[in-house]
Amino acid sequence: MHPRLKAFYRVRSDRRSIEARALALAVEQSVEMPVAAIDDPFVRAEIIGQVEGITEKESGEFEVCIALACETVADDAGQLINMLFGNSSLQEDVVLDDVELPPALITCFGGPRHGLDALRERASARRRALTCAVLKPQGLSPAKLSDLARRFASAGIDYIKDDHGLADQPYSPFQARVEAVVNALQKISGAATCSYAPSLSGDLDAMRKQIEVARAAGINTVLVAPMIMGWSNFSCLVRENARIAFIAHPSMGGIARIAPALLIGKLFRLLGADAVVFPNHGGRFGYSPDTCHALARAALTRSDGLRPCLPVPAGGMSTARVREMLEFYGADVMLLIGGALLEARAQLERATAAFVAEVHGYAYD
Amino acid sequence: MHPRLKAFYRVRSDRRSIEARALALAVEQSVEMPVAAIDDPFVRAEIIGQVEGITEKESGEFEVCIALACETVADDAGQLINMLFGNSSLQEDVVLDDVELPPALITCFGGPRHGLDALRERASARRRALTCAVLKPQGLSPAKLSDLARRFASAGIDYIKDDHGLADQPYSPFQARVEAVVNALQKISGAATCSYAPSLSGDLDAMRKQIEVARAAGINTVLVAPMIMGWSNFSCLVRENARIAFIAHPSMGGIARIAPALLIGKLFRLLGADAVVFPNHGGRFGYSPDTCHALARAALTRSDGLRPCLPVPAGGMSTARVREMLEFYGADVMLLIGGALLEARAQLERATAAFVAEVHGYAYD
Repeated sequence: MHPRLKAFYRVRSDRRSIEARALALAVEQSVEMPVAAIDDPFVRAEIIGQVEGITEKESGEFEVCIALACETVADDAGQLINMLFGNSSLQEDVVLDDVELPPALITCFGGPRHGLDALRERASARRRALTCAVLKPQGLSPAKLSDLARRFASAGIDYIKDDHGLADQPYSPFQARVEAVVNALQKISGAATCSYAPSLSGDLDAMRKQIEVARAAGINTVLVAPMIMGWSNFSCLVRENARIAFIAHPSMGGIARIAPALLIGKLFRLLGADAVVFPNHGGRFGYSPDTCHALARAALTRSDGLRPCLPVPAGGMSTARVREMLEFYGADVMLLIGGALLEARAQLERATAAFVAEVHGYAYD
Repeated sequence: MHPRLKAFYRVRSDRRSIEARALALAVEQSVEMPVAAIDDPFVRAEIIGQVEGITEKESGEFEVCIALACETVADDAGQLINMLFGNSSLQEDVVLDDVELPPALITCFGGPRHGLDALRERASARRRALTCAVLKPQGLSPAKLSDLARRFASAGIDYIKDDHGLADQPYSPFQARVEAVVNALQKISGAATCSYAPSLSGDLDAMRKQIEVARAAGINTVLVAPMIMGWSNFSCLVRENARIAFIAHPSMGGIARIAPALLIGKLFRLLGADAVVFPNHGGRFGYSPDTCHALARAALTRSDGLRPCLPVPAGGMSTARVREMLEFYGADVMLLIGGALLEARAQLERATAAFVAEVHGYAYD
C-alpha cells in the first residue's frame, strides 16, 4: 500500500455504534459509496479509507483515526481539505481533530517560505517577541489610515497589518491605500524595520494584481484569509511569490468543526503561512489556553522539516496583558494589539510606545 | 443612511446579556474596534453595524438582526461572507441564520445564469422531476468511469455528475475523463438530453483550463464546491462562463455554524449556482425535513427577481424513496441517486431504468 495520510476525528457516539460509525466515516471521506459494490482492485487496495484506530476519549466521545490515500489529494490544497472533511463537515457528530501527512505531501505544499526567522530578521529583532498593530476601522480614507500607520511606526511597531475587513472598497481602494501607507512610512526615520501587510481580497486575478501593486510599492508582507480565498488559490499565491511573506487570518475559520490547532496552526502553515493570526484566550473569542498553546506549538514546530510559522495571538489584547502573554507563549510570538491602541486616540503614539517598551523590556531568558 | 444588508444571527445568551452581546456582534462584523474611539463621521454614520432587532426564540436563544453597510462588501463575494460571518464564525455561541440583501447587491451577484428552467429544457423535461446519477468511486480509470456513464445514460438519466472527490488525479486526469465520458455518451442514441457535469478542482487558473477542456468537448454543465474554491472565484467563473450551468456541491459546508437554507439555498444561488446538491433528510446527514424544505424553498424562490435554482437532495437516496421525495419536494427537483445505483452492479441499467421510470411515472399534478 502506498503511504497514506492519517486523519483523526473526534466522534460523538455510543460504544455499540462506534465501529460502524468509524467505518462509515472512512467510506464517506474516500469512495462515498457502498464498498460491496466496488470491484476495482486498485480502488479496493489503494483508495478506500481504512479505520486505523478507535480510542474512547471520554464517555460518548471517541477518537477515530482513518488512513486516506494520498493519491486522492493529487497535490492540490483544495482537494486536501475536501478529502479530510468535505462531506463530514456536514455531519453534526464529528470534528476534524488532527492530521498526519507523509513526507511527500509535506514537501509538496512546502510550508512557510519565510516563517519565524525571516520575520524576525526584517524587524531586526533577534530574541524578543515581535509587535503588531492594525489599521482600522474600515470606512476610513487612505489618508486617515496612512496617518495611523505613521503614528504606529513612529512609536516603534514591527508590523502593521490591515484589518481583515479592509478590501478594495470605494472609500479605501487597495492601490491608493497601499501607496498612502508606504509613503507615510518612508517619511519616518527608523521605520525601515517596520513592515506593512495589506489585506488581499477578491478572486485570484484580483489578488495577483494587488500583490503586484504591493510589490511595486516595496511591500514584502501581505494578509490573506485562506478559508475565504480558497485553499488552492492560497497555495498558488505562495508558490508564485517567493519573496512575499504571508500572514494568515482565521476569518470563516468556524471554531466548532475543525480543531483550531489543526486548521490554523498546522494546515495554514503547511500551505505557506509565515505567520498565523488567531484569537488568544481571554479575549473576544472562546479559545481556551490549551487550544492556544496547542495552536502555537503546531505553528512553531520544526519537527517536519518545514520552517516554523510565527504565532500571532490577537482578538481584544492590550498592553496590560503583554507580560502574561510572553510568559505563556515565550519570545517566539508576535503580539498584536488592535482596538486597545486606537482607543488611546490622541495618545496613540504614547500607548503604542508603551506597548513596544513592554515587549522590548521583557526579561527574555 | 445608504441601504444596508440585514444579517440574522442565532445567539445563545441569557436575557441580561443579550443586548450587550448583540452590540458586540454588530461591532465584530463591521469596525471590529471600540466604537468610542471612532471619530470619523462617515464611519460612524455608514459603516458601524447596527442592531436592528432582538427576538427571544426559545429560552436562552435569541435572533439578532444586524444591519451591515453594503459598502464594506464592495461587490466582492469573498467580502460578502467575510462581512457576514468572518470573525463571528470563530465564536461558539453564534450561528449565521439568514440574510436580506438590498436589490443592488442581488443584481450585482446575479444568481443562476440558467437555473431551473434551462436545466429542465436541456433534459427535455417540462413538468416532471429531473434525475441525476454519479460517477464514482474515485480511483476508477477514465475508461471505467465512462463505461458507467454509458450505462446510466442508456437507462435514461438526465444528468450525470462526477463524485465531488474526482479532481485531476493521476489515475483519472480531468481531460482524459471528460473526453472518455463525452465519447461514451455520444455513441448512445437518445442520449442527446443527457448532460455530464465534471467536477472542477484546483486554483482559479486550473479551473479555467478545466472549463476550457469541458467546453471543447461540448459540455455545458460543471460541478463546483464554493466553500473550497473560494467565493470570489466561484463568482468569477460564473461571470466568465455565461453558457455553463453550475451545480454547487456543499463540501466543507459545515452544517453547524451557518444555517443550511441560507448557505446552500440562498447564498450559493445568489453567486450563480444553477442547481444545489444538499443532504436530504433521512440519509447519511443530519438535516431535518424542515431544514430541507427551507433550503429547497430558498433555492426555488422567484421573489427577488433572480432565476430559481434547482434543488438536488442527495446523500444516501434510493429508488424506494422517490415517491416520498416527490411528495415532499414536488416536481421542481432533481433526484440524485449515487451508491444505491452502483450497488446494483451488473444490474445497473435495470436499477437506473427503474429509478427513471419511477420519476417519469409519478402523477405530477
